[in-house]
Amino acid sequence: MLTPFADKAKADGVKVYHLNIGAPDIKSPDSALEALAGFKFDHLAYSNSAGMIELRTALCTKYYSSVGINVGVDDVLITTAGSEALSFVFHAATDPGDEVLVMEPYYCNYNTLAKMNGVKVVAVHTDIRKGFALPSAAEIEAHITPRTKAILICNPSNPSGVLYSKSDILSIADICRAHDLFLISDEAYREFCYTEEPYFSALQLEGMDDNVILIDSASKRYNLCGARIGALVSRNKDLMALITKFAQARLCPPVLGQVAAIGAINCPPDYFRATREEYIARRNYTIDRLNRIPGVFSPKPDGAFYTVAELPVDDATAFCKWLLTDFRLDGETVMLTPAEPFYGTPGMGRNQVRVAYVLEVHALERALNILEKALLTYNER
Amino acid sequence: MLTPFADKAKADGVKVYHLNIGAPDIKSPDSALEALAGFKFDHLAYSNSAGMIELRTALCTKYYSSVGINVGVDDVLITTAGSEALSFVFHAATDPGDEVLVMEPYYCNYNTLAKMNGVKVVAVHTDIRKGFALPSAAEIEAHITPRTKAILICNPSNPSGVLYSKSDILSIADICRAHDLFLISDEAYREFCYTEEPYFSALQLEGMDDNVILIDSASKRYNLCGARIGALVSRNKDLMALITKFAQARLCPPVLGQVAAIGAINCPPDYFRATREEYIARRNYTIDRLNRIPGVFSPKPDGAFYTVAELPVDDATAFCKWLLTDFRLDGETVMLTPAEPFYGTPGMGRNQVRVAYVLEVHALERALNILEKALLTYNER
Repeated sequence: MLTPFADKAKADGVKVYHLNIGAPDIKSPDSALEALAGFKFDHLAYSNSAGMIELRTALCTKYYSSVGINVGVDDVLITTAGSEALSFVFHAATDPGDEVLVMEPYYCNYNTLAKMNGVKVVAVHTDIRKGFALPSAAEIEAHITPRTKAILICNPSNPSGVLYSKSDILSIADICRAHDLFLISDEAYREFCYTEEPYFSALQLEGMDDNVILIDSASKRYNLCGARIGALVSRNKDLMALITKFAQARLCPPVLGQVAAIGAINCPPDYFRATREEYIARRNYTIDRLNRIPGVFSPKPDGAFYTVAELPVDDATAFCKWLLTDFRLDGETVMLTPAEPFYGTPGMGRNQVRVAYVLEVHALERALNILEKALLTYNER
Repeated sequence: MLTPFADKAKADGVKVYHLNIGAPDIKSPDSALEALAGFKFDHLAYSNSAGMIELRTALCTKYYSSVGINVGVDDVLITTAGSEALSFVFHAATDPGDEVLVMEPYYCNYNTLAKMNGVKVVAVHTDIRKGFALPSAAEIEAHITPRTKAILICNPSNPSGVLYSKSDILSIADICRAHDLFLISDEAYREFCYTEEPYFSALQLEGMDDNVILIDSASKRYNLCGARIGALVSRNKDLMALITKFAQARLCPPVLGQVAAIGAINCPPDYFRATREEYIARRNYTIDRLNRIPGVFSPKPDGAFYTVAELPVDDATAFCKWLLTDFRLDGETVMLTPAEPFYGTPGMGRNQVRVAYVLEVHALERALNILEKALLTYNER
């Protein structure tokens, strides 16, 4: 929506720091590039609709088993990125008009994917001043109606960076059990967690085999966004059988991306460690710096590579546009994402932005200096 | 559906000739492999949601312009194969419960894609004994109701191989104009035409800019099935704006496949010529041989690499299964696709199969010898 203004600024010779997009600059694993370079073909045939058996096996035996998730190849369906996995789940788990609860702020493409599949997203508010903590069971249950079929979480969350603990997941599971709901857990950012506590996946819940559906993705974990490889994982046999039919209708997920993903899974463990250390440094710098700007407030997120921050402006959308059209500091400006579209409740998040700390610290420093000066100028106009 | 029986036969050491799948064995263009080998990346980023500008430009200026289709980059949206393009069109062009007319026999995945998007496929019968010729305007119009929103054609057709002439397309266009319907033209097989008449694309129709939607694909044209690259092309600005929103929700089409497709478009013109000659030889052999088997009838298709043939059996599905489970000739058998699922009218096509002539002639010879012997044995049981 703001992209044309950024393009115009760049055409005018302005350097734009992109804190708006979740497109990290970290290198893909060498093993992914090597797998691709080593993949020779005469003609590029379809793979199995559920994905290449080599990829499904590698995911189960090398990745999931290493993070404490016990699933078999039949529980895993490779998808065209997490988006297709979620689309399949929305379609399989609901009838037109059914409702899915999502904690707001939430990834705004959930809205379009839900709408395309006849699902109504019902927002459960979480508060920036409480660090976007999970609401009480009573607050969540107040949103449940006879049409509610699932609770969808993104853990850790895009856009807020909130990371749900094991006890959070257990309490969501209790609600799902009590009301017979699916628990759809989008774990695209699961390798981006900055506490010392081990990550607790929804698939580690016990006695919930028919309820839990994992949405997974190679995009962020291996910096392979363009490969478009995701996975849908569930031990619910009937659901998987239905979704397999949808998968067959689109023939197969992208084969070249699957080859890269097979390679990526073989990356050494220090690939994640190095990435994690880099993001912790970026997060620490970003959150500290944001909170030192007068009138700005950001909680300290424990996961993903985003934060949602309050700015001392009435309308963050207008401010973000103004940054691109009017403000320059030494010929540079910054691009942020207005947070309002991440909220389902009308009027929420108007003075908030999402900041993606996907640049190196020296660039973050420059970008946040620009933001501080811009806010001053904007409010003195 | 028959795959487990084929797998079992193969596990038992039986060689299975696959005339069931549309997976050709022709080499991808060298230029596609070279483009991929030359593509270096540090991390694999998203492309534009509408596809890489290099690919959209190459499609317009190198491919479409060379085949008489005059479209601009804004009319082209790159999709995750033809399946996604059709899914987007079904979703954009109809409301739940609306109807789309399709000539039967038709590609059976149309049913699932339609169902997932709330569309009802209405079959218009075409007759094997008439070479699956386009029905009269009156016969087609008899199926139009107030809920009809589009006519979907596959030209040339999977599964029948029928190729619609310019005058066929003009008469379909007249119906669409008279009833204000979209004309959705799936032209995935457009380079596989075996007459001397030039191919006439629905996008070459005049005065139909708001009605015509082209579904395109790199899969068959360049033998890049696994790349999952297709395109949706229309001059209808409102439709494209709506579909762009769907495209944004799934971020982007597969980038590695896009790179291969950019390379493929640069293939020399004799790539298509050589492929075409090979398929003409295969078609000629297959149709002649099929019709020399007692009780078998196949029309001579002018496009794609399939034909639908009548067999001297009551239930072709049972026969196809028996081929895999019971019949061997010198330790070999043949796999065919029952044609009944390609029909929307109940009971139609029960004694028909689809034959994909995607093997070299010497293998086709062996496979059809097996079929002849099998039919004899089957009917003498």
